[in-house]
Amino acid sequence: MTEPFRLTASQAQAAFKDGSLTVEAYAKSLLDRVSVRDSTTHAWAYLDPKLVLERARELDKILPEKRGPLHGVAIGVKDVILTKDMPTQYNSPIYKDDAPKLDAASVQTLRANGALIFGKTTTTEFASTSVGPPYAGPKTANPHDPSRTPGGSSSGSGAAVGDMQVPIGLGTQTVGSTIRPGSFNGIYAMKPTWNSISREGQKVYSLILDTLGLYARSVDDLKLLLDVFHLVDDEPEEEFAIKGAKFALLTLPQPEWDAPGPGTAAALKKGADLLRAHGAEIEEITLPDEFRPMYDYQLKVLAGEGRVAFLADYYTAKDQLHPLLISHVENEKKYTRKEQLKAFDDLAAMRPKVDALADKYAAIIGPSVVDEAPTGHENTGSAQFCGPWTVMHMPVVNIPGFKGENGMPIGLSVVAARYRDQHLLRVSREVGKIFEAEGGWARNP
Amino acid sequence: MTEPFRLTASQAQAAFKDGSLTVEAYAKSLLDRVSVRDSTTHAWAYLDPKLVLERARELDKILPEKRGPLHGVAIGVKDVILTKDMPTQYNSPIYKDDAPKLDAASVQTLRANGALIFGKTTTTEFASTSVGPPYAGPKTANPHDPSRTPGGSSSGSGAAVGDMQVPIGLGTQTVGSTIRPGSFNGIYAMKPTWNSISREGQKVYSLILDTLGLYARSVDDLKLLLDVFHLVDDEPEEEFAIKGAKFALLTLPQPEWDAPGPGTAAALKKGADLLRAHGAEIEEITLPDEFRPMYDYQLKVLAGEGRVAFLADYYTAKDQLHPLLISHVENEKKYTRKEQLKAFDDLAAMRPKVDALADKYAAIIGPSVVDEAPTGHENTGSAQFCGPWTVMHMPVVNIPGFKGENGMPIGLSVVAARYRDQHLLRVSREVGKIFEAEGGWARNP
Repeated sequence: MTEPFRLTASQAQAAFKDGSLTVEAYAKSLLDRVSVRDSTTHAWAYLDPKLVLERARELDKILPEKRGPLHGVAIGVKDVILTKDMPTQYNSPIYKDDAPKLDAASVQTLRANGALIFGKTTTTEFASTSVGPPYAGPKTANPHDPSRTPGGSSSGSGAAVGDMQVPIGLGTQTVGSTIRPGSFNGIYAMKPTWNSISREGQKVYSLILDTLGLYARSVDDLKLLLDVFHLVDDEPEEEFAIKGAKFALLTLPQPEWDAPGPGTAAALKKGADLLRAHGAEIEEITLPDEFRPMYDYQLKVLAGEGRVAFLADYYTAKDQLHPLLISHVENEKKYTRKEQLKAFDDLAAMRPKVDALADKYAAIIGPSVVDEAPTGHENTGSAQFCGPWTVMHMPVVNIPGFKGENGMPIGLSVVAARYRDQHLLRVSREVGKIFEAEGGWARNP
Repeated sequence: MTEPFRLTASQAQAAFKDGSLTVEAYAKSLLDRVSVRDSTTHAWAYLDPKLVLERARELDKILPEKRGPLHGVAIGVKDVILTKDMPTQYNSPIYKDDAPKLDAASVQTLRANGALIFGKTTTTEFASTSVGPPYAGPKTANPHDPSRTPGGSSSGSGAAVGDMQVPIGLGTQTVGSTIRPGSFNGIYAMKPTWNSISREGQKVYSLILDTLGLYARSVDDLKLLLDVFHLVDDEPEEEFAIKGAKFALLTLPQPEWDAPGPGTAAALKKGADLLRAHGAEIEEITLPDEFRPMYDYQLKVLAGEGRVAFLADYYTAKDQLHPLLISHVENEKKYTRKEQLKAFDDLAAMRPKVDALADKYAAIIGPSVVDEAPTGHENTGSAQFCGPWTVMHMPVVNIPGFKGENGMPIGLSVVAARYRDQHLLRVSREVGKIFEAEGGWARNP
């Protein structure tokens, strides 16, 4: 039998159902995996094996007919999301060992549906910087090459799911904090439509951008989560076939973007070739010029909303805040309110237009990251390719399957119009089958 | 000497400064006032006199040169805003006695600046309904006539500040939950620009509408708060004079609004006459037709965001949720995502246009409420006149001074473009002097 820790959540659930696995045995297998791997990956900010096993035994006691749709699904929670039975420390010295007895709405929802909240995963400071050690960043390493970053800010969830320490992870995304670690760690990562899942109890950076993010090693697992979170499209759930589907492929470089590295450039080309080979039509597009200011607007929105978000901690412990966050509060860039409002309003005006563009295709395909995970841990990498979809509030899935020059995983982003999350997942399932089978990268056994 | 409880926060601070009053003596006076009045007004969801006096004594011990700008300012906190040393119960049976050890960002900011967090004030369920008893609503009464409602959802903060049980109160506003109790209780109420103050740790109903609200009995007190919360306009702080200023007066009824009651109609006429008599120019306006859909859009945004906001509690305790909140989660109105997005996007497109309209005037003057506070406690009154400014993200101040047919207070709203909060406060100071002196209503001595 496969070691239980290797199972996806859906596979583990099938084993719970047919009686071949208990939640306790599953949890033990995951904990064993963590104990073997943690000194290498450092993905956890808090993990109490005793608590995990206690909860697992409680779940095993629930009668089969009373089990929730997430029964026994182990979930790592990014440490900027409140959990009532574990500390939430934001990788900030201000919140060391802080443990308010409160679940974020997302965690409350998962628990109510039978999930096993496993532990807290590492994050960069308040999920708001791209900084690793020696500053305050997490010392989390990429499981596929510990000399490389797992990405950020959802460093721990990305690494833990990529390393089979847990099948599901929660991240957050304000620019690229969910999708980037998804690519770097070779897993599926989803940023759903903005505010389609409650972000109550999740640290605020930007109200208009912050989104809960989801990690898994299969599309089935993401589907489990979307259903529990009541994500419903307007359109009925119809089967999606690659053959005959039309995709948009973002040509690169876009005017405001850096050029992709060789790994991402090759992945984009190979991805398009594979889809064509399976009968899809690929149309190369560039984002029209009218959308070019979105890169500049994103910076202004972040600065303007960060100015508000970090004021309380600025008052209580300015000396323990990263300089970037201080610069927001002090409006170091001297952005005027007028500039901030123009950015806010113009981004809002772009959203229905970009939706209309996306609606012409099964999905838009673009890069998730510049290239494979860079070496070193000082910096968690660039989020520039993720920002546009975040400011547009669109759902994005990182699909793994490709590899870079050093054999590290590279994923591609598929993107749909707002509230087409379930559609995007159906597209991702079919695209994922192809990319995973023929893209050239496979998770180490 | 005036009994300390009658002082505004700014007056109390002057007395702390000249040594004529300690924070402890002030707190005792407020607690005495509460003990005399609480059986009538029922404004508090939680108040621990021992804790208040302990904190007051701690504040007294701080050396004068180390005192914060809000030193000793007593603040009632609406019971949907987290406080680390008091329960937060949302007037929901689900959260009875729930007390996570966490301060909302607003409370953290106030504490860090020396405020005395006094107690938790009553609210309707999750600040999301307009329902009083016998359903789950607070039994809070209007201090000026206990047979009447104090308004909602910020019932307790409105009543407590109106009744001089505390000089400052925090409310929240998603439609009219701050401004309406302001008018009903005869006090200043301010809804600042959306997201100009962090709403982290404040119950979420609608991310795009929820705003922290402020109550006080003087403009000086509101100014203290805006400064601590770093609300800075683009324009420098220049003196404002009524003479020569131009105001817009909303003519009523607007196409989508009910007609105002006789009290509000008289207040609008008298307010305009008074300002004219003091040398202001008044231009009557109606909102252009293109803005009329905002009333419909507001409902769709509330339904769409409420669908997300109450999902977690729906899973854990549906039987203890108000039917309105269940109807949101279940999307009883069958709104499509397309309708919800159109509402969201079109409201966004209106905001810069309404700003431009407001910028032609010192402020727009409109009704805060339909009329004086209605009798009974089953319903906290209509918020229809407040909704438009909330969906437009504009700052609003309720200015007291008028009275209705039964002698109850009535206020008027002054409104400015986004991020002109400090400007609006300067306007409110001068307008308030006139309305309070000549409007016809005065707080009972």
